[in-house]
Amino acid sequence: MKFDTDEQEFLDKYDPSDYPSIAVAVDIVVFGISKSTPKSYRRLGKQSLNIMLVKRKEYPFKDKLALPGGFVLPEETIDETAKRVLKTKTELNEIYCEQLYTFGDINRDPRMRVISCAYIALVDTEKTQIKDAEWVDADIIKNTDLAFDHAVIIMEALKRLRGKINYTDIVFYMMPEKFTISQLQEIYETILQKKLLPAAFRRTISGKIIQTEEFTQNAGHRPSRLYRWIGNCADSVNK
Amino acid sequence: MKFDTDEQEFLDKYDPSDYPSIAVAVDIVVFGISKSTPKSYRRLGKQSLNIMLVKRKEYPFKDKLALPGGFVLPEETIDETAKRVLKTKTELNEIYCEQLYTFGDINRDPRMRVISCAYIALVDTEKTQIKDAEWVDADIIKNTDLAFDHAVIIMEALKRLRGKINYTDIVFYMMPEKFTISQLQEIYETILQKKLLPAAFRRTISGKIIQTEEFTQNAGHRPSRLYRWIGNCADSVNK
Repeated sequence: MKFDTDEQEFLDKYDPSDYPSIAVAVDIVVFGISKSTPKSYRRLGKQSLNIMLVKRKEYPFKDKLALPGGFVLPEETIDETAKRVLKTKTELNEIYCEQLYTFGDINRDPRMRVISCAYIALVDTEKTQIKDAEWVDADIIKNTDLAFDHAVIIMEALKRLRGKINYTDIVFYMMPEKFTISQLQEIYETILQKKLLPAAFRRTISGKIIQTEEFTQNAGHRPSRLYRWIGNCADSVNK
Repeated sequence: MKFDTDEQEFLDKYDPSDYPSIAVAVDIVVFGISKSTPKSYRRLGKQSLNIMLVKRKEYPFKDKLALPGGFVLPEETIDETAKRVLKTKTELNEIYCEQLYTFGDINRDPRMRVISCAYIALVDTEKTQIKDAEWVDADIIKNTDLAFDHAVIIMEALKRLRGKINYTDIVFYMMPEKFTISQLQEIYETILQKKLLPAAFRRTISGKIIQTEEFTQNAGHRPSRLYRWIGNCADSVNK
């Protein structure tokens, strides 16, 4: 940018330390689906909605579980901070990530005033190696004492995910490449926290998936046809 | 909050000035509907979507139009900053206000690193006196050189408004208490930037409005029935 002389003079005299300063952090709610080990060879493993958490190694809230996060550095945009934080926890670069909400309660961090710009990210856990982090079932998190206001951030993230699942395709960023209709329905039901009628569910997803010529190969029950997301090609990632 | 001795010691030694500091501002896109003076007594005045702008009195961007905004002070939450900024520009307290998005480009403010947490607010212009600000037609703003990245913020706000108009009732926060169906349709068309078929439009708004026993009283054309929003009672404001 170029400014006229008066404006340039104003800018030269401007001292940022005259103004209230606040730290800005990014915290990310990373969602993924994980499978429990089936109790019987006749059943598929139950799928659950998981959130990536890290055990804090330092004060404040040392040893408590927290969302992965970090401070926004002077030379990076907020989106770049989000990408950097994700990179320290997973090896996958191409994951769905969007800004959620900015949390600004005055005492949310005991160190100093820290405003947190929260993001949500969706990953396919089967393709994602995680480092220094763990997947925790969203249902278990509800009864866990988390660091900072991260429980509030997670509630807001779940609300966003529930709101978006019906009018967008974002759920497929968490699905494996091929899945059965009932696996997909189980995920919808887990996120929406209600049972869905199969006929109504098929209407919801019609136009979003296409069938493959492959079937599940689990011994013990009838093979089910595998489907894939209609948008699942390389250039649709990170849209 | 209470902390154990080690944690308290850590906090006592913590020096915020060791960490990158950033200013956080709030900028608000306030939407309202205004009527032009009718060209003929046989026509109603055309309604247009307006955005509240202020002419900057100081550098940077002195004399340019900008969104109303202000820095987040140490003792206030981001929502409180938004309320304070609105209060300096309008006399109305009870207006619809929601967080939009946080903008964090590195050079968006020539003074220093300023991250802007943007809000949208919707007001009924007939009930709202504005101070040190003006209403500018959204169509005119598109061709106006605004301060900072406020043009980008406004684009995002218009996108949010367009997205929400069909699945929420927020449009009614901008409507007068009583309105005709065609006035309401004109607002939808202005926001969505397309013509709507009357039959389809009636389906969109069915369940959202109820008819009154009153009619327009403009000389020169057939009186039209007035309607009001079904949610228009005191306790639905600010939901």
